[in-house]
Amino acid sequence: MIQLHGFTGSGNCYKPALAMRQLGIPYQWHEVDILRGESRTPAFLAKNPNGRIPLLEVEPGRYLAESNAMLGYLADGTALLPADRWARAKVYEWLFFEQYSHEPYIATIRFWTTIENSVERHRDRIAEMRPRGHAALAVMERQLAQTPFLTGADYTIADIALFAYTHVAHEGGFDLGPYPAVRNWLGNVMDTPGFVPMQDCCG
Amino acid sequence: MIQLHGFTGSGNCYKPALAMRQLGIPYQWHEVDILRGESRTPAFLAKNPNGRIPLLEVEPGRYLAESNAMLGYLADGTALLPADRWARAKVYEWLFFEQYSHEPYIATIRFWTTIENSVERHRDRIAEMRPRGHAALAVMERQLAQTPFLTGADYTIADIALFAYTHVAHEGGFDLGPYPAVRNWLGNVMDTPGFVPMQDCCG
Repeated sequence: MIQLHGFTGSGNCYKPALAMRQLGIPYQWHEVDILRGESRTPAFLAKNPNGRIPLLEVEPGRYLAESNAMLGYLADGTALLPADRWARAKVYEWLFFEQYSHEPYIATIRFWTTIENSVERHRDRIAEMRPRGHAALAVMERQLAQTPFLTGADYTIADIALFAYTHVAHEGGFDLGPYPAVRNWLGNVMDTPGFVPMQDCCG
Repeated sequence: MIQLHGFTGSGNCYKPALAMRQLGIPYQWHEVDILRGESRTPAFLAKNPNGRIPLLEVEPGRYLAESNAMLGYLADGTALLPADRWARAKVYEWLFFEQYSHEPYIATIRFWTTIENSVERHRDRIAEMRPRGHAALAVMERQLAQTPFLTGADYTIADIALFAYTHVAHEGGFDLGPYPAVRNWLGNVMDTPGFVPMQDCCG
């Protein structure tokens, strides 16, 4: 059985968990307390030299890091990742957008706000980062005003990747009020077959 | 013919350019001067709402953003991206590593140092970011001490993605002296068939 090494409350860990639930792939969860440095121990670094969670152990000793690489691996050959070359490229476009333009702002501010409780120490950085998070939401809004899911009519791992931190963006003080299409899309994702909330599949 | 909208000197733009040269795919370069805001004009935003280069126009009006999504698209079905599901996942693991753990530190410090000339203004941020860039190089070193290319014996788009900013890391003040395997790998990449230096395929 696949082993998922993760931290409760991490949107990045929620991504492979949700994909596996919706694809009917059983897995076991192993908690890694990143606040206690458990992702930087020699034992963990031997599994993932980059010292980050989530980490997917697809069979004993065979590890895959990077949440969005996991999504591509898990969804390969399923309806969550189209076989058509161009359609697949557009899914990956959103996956890279998520890791470069969305997660570093929206997830990081949420982490400092509700997980690490370090908002005071990061006040200046948050002021710099907040507009970039809103810029990412605006890019999503522009697309989702036109299509029910990020790449068009169909739900894919692009939606799973962006849902992970967008649905908890308010925990970092992001008001989704100005993004009606994004709010509507959150509902579309929650209505997909086999959808499971974060707290029910992580930890 | 494919159109590549890019900025001379950008490693992210070098990635698809190098891949296309090595795959024998002809393209035309269109310079976008990001220092003059040309990636944030209404005309450009209509092509890429995220306002970034590179931007690949695979046919008139059909656009793909995100350099590493371009690599996956261009290399699909070629030796630069293995067909095997697990091998492909490991390539994407490095592509996401590059955009999350490498580029934001190594490319950004280089941009401030040699392109924007804004080191003074970013001195505190650079001090915070420098160790993270070295951490990324150390992850690469650990792998490349074992294999000639990042995913093993074969050259893939993972190597193209990481080469782009690693080979100019010194322009941001990163000394590659402590990373002999990384330095050796830079040579391995430059020895691959059809390799073209950045200045010869961008701009």
